Amino acid sequence: MQALPPGSTIGILGGGQLARMLTLAAARLGLKCRIFAPEHDSPAFQVCASHIVARYDDQNALLEFAAEVDAITYEFENVPVEAVEFLEKLKPVRPGSKALAVSQDRIKEKTLAREMGALTAEFRSVNSLDELQAATKEVGLPAILKTTRMGYDGKGQARVSSVDDLPHAFAAMKGQSAILESFVRFEKEVSVICARGADGQFAAYDVPENVHRTGILHTSSVPAEIDEMLSTEAVFVAQRMAEALDYVGVMAVEFFVGDFVIYVNEIAPRVHNSGHWTMDACVISQFEQHMRCVAGWPLGSAARHSDVVMTNLLGEESNAWATLAALPQVGLHLYGKSEARAGRKMGHFNKISPRRA
Amino acid sequence: MQALPPGSTIGILGGGQLARMLTLAAARLGLKCRIFAPEHDSPAFQVCASHIVARYDDQNALLEFAAEVDAITYEFENVPVEAVEFLEKLKPVRPGSKALAVSQDRIKEKTLAREMGALTAEFRSVNSLDELQAATKEVGLPAILKTTRMGYDGKGQARVSSVDDLPHAFAAMKGQSAILESFVRFEKEVSVICARGADGQFAAYDVPENVHRTGILHTSSVPAEIDEMLSTEAVFVAQRMAEALDYVGVMAVEFFVGDFVIYVNEIAPRVHNSGHWTMDACVISQFEQHMRCVAGWPLGSAARHSDVVMTNLLGEESNAWATLAALPQVGLHLYGKSEARAGRKMGHFNKISPRRA
Repeated sequence: MQALPPGSTIGILGGGQLARMLTLAAARLGLKCRIFAPEHDSPAFQVCASHIVARYDDQNALLEFAAEVDAITYEFENVPVEAVEFLEKLKPVRPGSKALAVSQDRIKEKTLAREMGALTAEFRSVNSLDELQAATKEVGLPAILKTTRMGYDGKGQARVSSVDDLPHAFAAMKGQSAILESFVRFEKEVSVICARGADGQFAAYDVPENVHRTGILHTSSVPAEIDEMLSTEAVFVAQRMAEALDYVGVMAVEFFVGDFVIYVNEIAPRVHNSGHWTMDACVISQFEQHMRCVAGWPLGSAARHSDVVMTNLLGEESNAWATLAALPQVGLHLYGKSEARAGRKMGHFNKISPRRA
Repeated sequence: MQALPPGSTIGILGGGQLARMLTLAAARLGLKCRIFAPEHDSPAFQVCASHIVARYDDQNALLEFAAEVDAITYEFENVPVEAVEFLEKLKPVRPGSKALAVSQDRIKEKTLAREMGALTAEFRSVNSLDELQAATKEVGLPAILKTTRMGYDGKGQARVSSVDDLPHAFAAMKGQSAILESFVRFEKEVSVICARGADGQFAAYDVPENVHRTGILHTSSVPAEIDEMLSTEAVFVAQRMAEALDYVGVMAVEFFVGDFVIYVNEIAPRVHNSGHWTMDACVISQFEQHMRCVAGWPLGSAARHSDVVMTNLLGEESNAWATLAALPQVGLHLYGKSEARAGRKMGHFNKISPRRA
């Protein structure tokens, strides 16, 4: 595919804050966006050139969507892979269904990481209470049981501390295929936000250090305070995974950092919350970088001009917008969501400071 | 007026690249934009929540526009002052009709500058060939004859080098009121991009040095290579003018820099082409700063994290987008205009570098 010239239209499946920020970044480059989302009040609708409200299994709507776009991407990995496979027959979809299928399945995901020579937690596939009991013996306790598919931000997970927890944990999977994972001893969490262009070019942003609260990202800080050898290794692992997936676009890989080792936690075939700091600390944000890849443009530089701490605003935390807006050297980002439900990602802010090195 | 909360809607008169970049900046803050513009293919329509296509003298359309917005601003000073006066009765308009009326009239503009203690070129009002002849004797030759109103980017101007030029220059005004201005001896052109909040807070960005080509801005570089005393004086002049106009919003004042003196050239009651560098060298761009003022939010910091050179892309220069997109540390901005007519502002790019001081 030739680079799509300015004025082209990129279709995005999903209309949440990631689609919104992708659309805003595309607009910088003169690219229009067309959003496909099931929710009538999707935040991305406020900033896009056009949108369609429909379910992801509505093939007529998908056809209508594809007809008016030049390339397609998706906002998050819980888009049905069938919708992406359907669209791939009509227009270029980046990243494609292969990356989506792997990232939707924690077993495929960890298997790929291991094939790339990376460490992961121990894991076993679990489809029955018997399998769960067997798995606990192999993986050890405590461990964590997760649905194999469709989990994010700590949803669809149950901790298994002792054999007494097994029935409850298994029931929490609600009959879905699951994966039992060992706990990894780690001190920090970091992530690689990287991009692979349509021509195979690769670029990675500096590695952020991520702090979670109740399973949801709280802050990402750059530079991370980790050994440079480990951050370099993390980037190499991410690059090998991107190449194995023939990936085009921005991809995130989360890592646990232990004593002189790193473990792949999970990959996200998309822009990532732990990359939101790029909006204020880099000339080319992760959102623009992704849209460059989707449109077949040259990769932008992933260089960083400032140190930065990104903090998420969940639920009513965003009510402090007036105070946050007055802080010096703070970029405030609000997602245009009308209802500040508890735990809902409403916005984030980036506090920048001069580079220490 | 209380600060407008996220989710509020700002109306913008005008749908060009300035309205487009204002809309994108407002979206960061969770503010929606509604655009009013006469042209069907206005670049801002691609990124706004809603729009109206109508003439500025269509009062029904203005009523409909005002009904659905919480505050109003305008993109450029050639919006009819009558439209703004009409809207002011319905919703807060920032900056208001006072600033608009002054900046639409070169004589009022220069008179205000002088009242603020600033220097300007010599000038005389010209409404007939006789007045022009008399004015040339007072102002001296060479001089430049401009329409008093509605000029920008070198349009509506005629150079007067000798008395032989007078009939031709006068004819070029096409019967409009004109102003004869002396040439000022200057070495550089700089501008002040500043903001005054609804609460009277004031902030100014670092002063850019501007280079024009054939009357149109070519580059803006920061820092400017001028004496710090002169740049400080320029900011004070701008602040006094903003206060005299009871101004709310971002305002630009262009200056000529001579030997130890500065002259006010003109003011623009809006975000300005010579402030486009703020998009990549500051956390808070001039566009966000303006929308903060319009929405009654606290001013953002005007601090700059990088040195920067902004270069305009006129007409077919924007065809080089693929080359420009590949340059390191360059933020490329394209305006979504379909037709690259000669001299038309199609985009710009900001090349940043680490601060020298």
